[in-house]
Amino acid sequence: MAVAELCLFPLGTESPSVGRYLEPVIEVIEKSGLKYMVCPMGTVVEGSVDEILELVKKCHEAILKAGAKRVVISLKIDDRIDKPLSIEGKLGV
Amino acid sequence: MAVAELCLFPLGTESPSVGRYLEPVIEVIEKSGLKYMVCPMGTVVEGSVDEILELVKKCHEAILKAGAKRVVISLKIDDRIDKPLSIEGKLGV
Amino acid sequence: MAVAELCLFPLGTESPSVGRYLEPVIEVIEKSGLKYMVCPMGTVVEGSVDEILELVKKCHEAILKAGAKRVVISLKIDDRIDKPLSIEGKLGV
Amino acid sequence: MAVAELCLFPLGTESPSVGRYLEPVIEVIEKSGLKYMVCPMGTVVEGSVDEILELVKKCHEAILKAGAKRVVISLKIDDRIDKPLSIEGKLGV
Repeated sequence: MAVAELCLFPLGTESPSVGRYLEPVIEVIEKSGLKYMVCPMGTVVEGSVDEILELVKKCHEAILKAGAKRVVISLKIDDRIDKPLSIEGKLGV
Repeated sequence: MAVAELCLFPLGTESPSVGRYLEPVIEVIEKSGLKYMVCPMGTVVEGSVDEILELVKKCHEAILKAGAKRVVISLKIDDRIDKPLSIEGKLGV
Repeated sequence: MAVAELCLFPLGTESPSVGRYLEPVIEVIEKSGLKYMVCPMGTVVEGSVDEILELVKKCHEAILKAGAKRVVISLKIDDRIDKPLSIEGKLGV
Repeated sequence: MAVAELCLFPLGTESPSVGRYLEPVIEVIEKSGLKYMVCPMGTVVEGSVDEILELVKKCHEAILKAGAKRVVISLKIDDRIDKPLSIEGKLGV
């Protein structure tokens, strides 16, 4: 299992408050069935790298559907093969 | 107040487990007096941009002091002037 | 077309010099047929979001095959639907 | 010498085209005297960690002065103490 943080920023939205573009993204993450944790600077998910990349694709579609004309997606994946990784394990530092 | 996420990766450590390099970094964040939250993919802090950059400097020193020969520092700052920003506020998105 | 920057850091490699883990990654990018540009802090590619995510998957496989036990992948995608995006266009900012 | 990539995204601009907010940022980088390279997904600079963080502070001020109400700053620093690092050296992979 890998752990990843995903963050989407819609650009050109008129208002600096972008929550209404992010709500459908959180819904997509919720529906994915992957374990996740909403953090202040992004949403952290736990899954295989394939599952995570598939989720990024769906989040991208969701934010465009919500009306974003431009989006910056920031993704950071941590994966290791010598030991299991998990959201909980990583919270223990 | 800005909210930022800070993440340090020591490279070239013998083991893929890098917790012992990160413990002194967390201590530095704790001592800074800034409000912070340990998240699975980094530590989130709340403060002025100046305070955050000053903290990055100290974390960089701490990880080198802990023996890292190479470090990648990843920082993402969210700052707005039209409305107050806070860790708590951003968790409500 | 979206433009993305991809960066992989192997952790726990004994030496802080990690070029030998990155060479096979650059090869995978080269073979993908996507337009790309090697930059100092990552490799920039141009393609659809699907093509980019597919490439990330292959780069992840390549760095594990090269012997990395743990890897941090950092990806930033810029996509817009109101105008064409390209590596060349973004260099003109 | 460390090498860093700096990227600023103004949020809540009326248009998804944000070049006019970034021009003053590039000017600040130019005036800093640090070696730099404009890349498609950010600007890469070479300097000490202190110099880089000082520059981030000035870029942040410049983008607010240019009228941004909200900004996301993304910074990635690569620093090593066992060997010299440079923009040119990193382009050699």
